Amino acid sequence: MSNFGIHHLRLVNPYAVAFREARSAVGASHVLKSAEEFKSVANAVADCPLVIGTTAVRNRALRNPLRRLDAKTGQTIREQLHAGRVALLFGSEKIGLTNDDFSHCHWLLNIPTAADHISMNLGQAVAVCLYEIARGETDPSEIGAVSLSLAKDAAPATAGEAEQITETLLEALHKSGYVKPGNDAVSEKKVRSLILRLSLSAGDAKVLLGMVRQIVWKLRRMGKD
Amino acid sequence: MSNFGIHHLRLVNPYAVAFREARSAVGASHVLKSAEEFKSVANAVADCPLVIGTTAVRNRALRNPLRRLDAKTGQTIREQLHAGRVALLFGSEKIGLTNDDFSHCHWLLNIPTAADHISMNLGQAVAVCLYEIARGETDPSEIGAVSLSLAKDAAPATAGEAEQITETLLEALHKSGYVKPGNDAVSEKKVRSLILRLSLSAGDAKVLLGMVRQIVWKLRRMGKD
Repeated sequence: MSNFGIHHLRLVNPYAVAFREARSAVGASHVLKSAEEFKSVANAVADCPLVIGTTAVRNRALRNPLRRLDAKTGQTIREQLHAGRVALLFGSEKIGLTNDDFSHCHWLLNIPTAADHISMNLGQAVAVCLYEIARGETDPSEIGAVSLSLAKDAAPATAGEAEQITETLLEALHKSGYVKPGNDAVSEKKVRSLILRLSLSAGDAKVLLGMVRQIVWKLRRMGKD
Repeated sequence: MSNFGIHHLRLVNPYAVAFREARSAVGASHVLKSAEEFKSVANAVADCPLVIGTTAVRNRALRNPLRRLDAKTGQTIREQLHAGRVALLFGSEKIGLTNDDFSHCHWLLNIPTAADHISMNLGQAVAVCLYEIARGETDPSEIGAVSLSLAKDAAPATAGEAEQITETLLEALHKSGYVKPGNDAVSEKKVRSLILRLSLSAGDAKVLLGMVRQIVWKLRRMGKD
């Protein structure tokens, strides 16, 4: 991370022993020292307008759009960095990201590898992704610090704002019978992915949340009568 | 190495203990098993028409030409591979390659990194170099197939499909009290603009319409009770 000018490490429920004993590379101790811990992926990415999951598998039956890591994808990510934080999500070395993790992602990223050996070492996968993203920056350390003054409402909604809509909409779908009992987990992923795919602006997210909240309020009140 | 389809590992005077205890990554045992040992760099690269040394240092007073790892350099190396073996020479983690090692190299390669952290982990440096060299060579067809199978639902929703959502959502907003009486025309435009800005895919439009329809059905039914 430090080699490519990326300094914000966030960990979701890290294995305590491994994390305590982790020793940073020479010159990169600040990354480990300033690493933040979170209880859930949702919390970890709440302030990020773009969340990208990484996967070794290319033909998973997924709702998320899948992109190949290449020069064009790197450029796309660099452009998004002008609008706000980008979260690059990596799973554990053994099992990678789960479908639940994927439901928090706007899209997925795959490193092109030989067909007979697709699973990569975690540190190497991170290095390859960050190398591609940092490419062409005169000084990669400027990545992440770049920000343009976009009109506030036109800026992309953060993952946290999208999650509020997801949760409120889910309540409306429960109360209206769209979500069948016992089907909660699938519905939750489905709704979260849908909301993320809308790529809402902050302004539209606010309006949509207001609408869904009012509907939930009405459904609650009618349920009580 | 195995991830990027490279299988010939050659070691010059490896530290015996570390080499004996080295455990390969899952799926890559053949690389370690077939690794060859040499007594000198000269012997190790003897059959290679092109020898490229790697270095973290950019302004070393060197006789060797120095190139930055990028798409163009990757292509140059791929072209050389048609002519014969290319040796990519990495030094030890601590001290890198020596001037004597450099004297065996046709040119040197530097991975662009942040100016304040130029020294890379050996495994990560290898992965980044091989990713760049393998670029475009590793079966891209599979990724293309995924985006094709998504194509139908990924097509943009028609204006008519968007309008169905607008009308149904407006009914839900009326019934829940979000739209105040007398304010219908403004609300209609506001909702229509919002739905259009979402740039829904045909698949997502269908799902969203189903959700809103169910909510309207529930609000209607509760209103009757």
